[in-house]
Amino acid sequence: VTAREEEIGIKVGTEVIAGRLITPHPKTPGVLLVHGWGGNQDHYLSHAREIAALGCVCLVFDLRGHAATEPQRLTVRPKDNFDDLVAAYDRLCNNPLVDREAICVVGSSYGGFLASLLTAVRPVRWLALRVPALYKDEHWTEAKAEIDRQELEEFRSEIIPAYRNRALGAASFFAGDVLIVESEHDDFVPHTVITSYRNAFQEASSLTYRIIKGADHSLSSSEPRRAYSAILISWASEMILGAREAGGTNVAVADVQGVPGTLDSSEA
Amino acid sequence: VTAREEEIGIKVGTEVIAGRLITPHPKTPGVLLVHGWGGNQDHYLSHAREIAALGCVCLVFDLRGHAATEPQRLTVRPKDNFDDLVAAYDRLCNNPLVDREAICVVGSSYGGFLASLLTAVRPVRWLALRVPALYKDEHWTEAKAEIDRQELEEFRSEIIPAYRNRALGAASFFAGDVLIVESEHDDFVPHTVITSYRNAFQEASSLTYRIIKGADHSLSSSEPRRAYSAILISWASEMILGAREAGGTNVAVADVQGVPGTLDSSEA
Repeated sequence: VTAREEEIGIKVGTEVIAGRLITPHPKTPGVLLVHGWGGNQDHYLSHAREIAALGCVCLVFDLRGHAATEPQRLTVRPKDNFDDLVAAYDRLCNNPLVDREAICVVGSSYGGFLASLLTAVRPVRWLALRVPALYKDEHWTEAKAEIDRQELEEFRSEIIPAYRNRALGAASFFAGDVLIVESEHDDFVPHTVITSYRNAFQEASSLTYRIIKGADHSLSSSEPRRAYSAILISWASEMILGAREAGGTNVAVADVQGVPGTLDSSEA
Repeated sequence: VTAREEEIGIKVGTEVIAGRLITPHPKTPGVLLVHGWGGNQDHYLSHAREIAALGCVCLVFDLRGHAATEPQRLTVRPKDNFDDLVAAYDRLCNNPLVDREAICVVGSSYGGFLASLLTAVRPVRWLALRVPALYKDEHWTEAKAEIDRQELEEFRSEIIPAYRNRALGAASFFAGDVLIVESEHDDFVPHTVITSYRNAFQEASSLTYRIIKGADHSLSSSEPRRAYSAILISWASEMILGAREAGGTNVAVADVQGVPGTLDSSEA
């Protein structure tokens, strides 16, 4: 995401004045947004549009068992949906505009669980997890719809060390920037699960952790939804614009000779 | 600055899942930054880099009579520097990346005066003027350095109606978005000049007017400089990202069929 700076001459009649043209990197960050179980690609569509406005290529998609493939709902396994995510990632990266070293993955709930695992097999620079769910490794090849709710609740009620779970293990190796957003009143992803993820991200370049007060798991009321949007867009702006700027500055340090920045003189 | 949205199929093994790819407009806004009398292109370089990080092509340049053409300081006329600005504008617009319908011009003091006039002869969508100076129409072909300071002070001490001055006249026809930034303690551009400009911008789509407390004309101390940076970057972000988003949404309304945005189900 490095900008390019070039010194140019601008003709004015028979004379030439000096200028500097700053051009953004021709490739843009790519952002992949993963809905939760029971959602679909529309869940993240408005966020995708807002993030695209930062100058990114964004991809939303339907996990199998949802929308057009709803008939697979009872049989689809976490492993299958993980394959969906990898396929969507690869499709995004194959877009010629996308800078493969600047990929952001955003996921909610089950989508956050899959997103964490994705970092073990594909390069991810920025990872945003809203109420990331957690499943046992043994659930990987079980039908998602068949996973025992009671067993899951017990599993999620304890803080799990990263070495005991593949999703947390992937998190523990992740070296990029992380956003974790919790819902204060979450009946599915309790505070212990969020703590397990937070503990796991020991190698992260940065961690931004927010709790949305009064929110339930699915952000069913509008105020928490707005709060999440604000948190996500602000974080994405900081990360993506920050990376572009850092890039620009680096180039400038290497390329530019001349006087340091001066101000207007006081005369007008 | 309109984004493009396309519905795509993503292959996963022998199956296909549905997705939507949102790609920013291949052209980017162009931003031209004009220093004041006695400044040079470095004045706006750090701002140009920050704005480029929003995904814009930026151009800074030296007005004649400054930097390499310093020997012309005593003879260069406002008309000459206006020609410089037009030449720089045209050079920016000739960049194949630049969207000619999304040009922003940023100017300080004398550069703000020239920028206001530019809008009469070239398409400008966004105009940011910091302490824009004002000169009499008769000064146009006088050497800038020879303009009588006393006469200028008297001229600037009164509120001037737009029809009596070309720079204000250009402002009165400008239909884009405007930022005006005043310095609280300005010995060169008094509040009356700022008021003349504010009064002139009757047709503007939006007007953002800020006074930097404790600032002098040249922002010689660091706190006002930081305040100006924050004001300019925040305004540029709102304008440029807002335009991209509006573009994206318009396309979506036209192109997209399907269910309205839904949330995650409550199951995780």
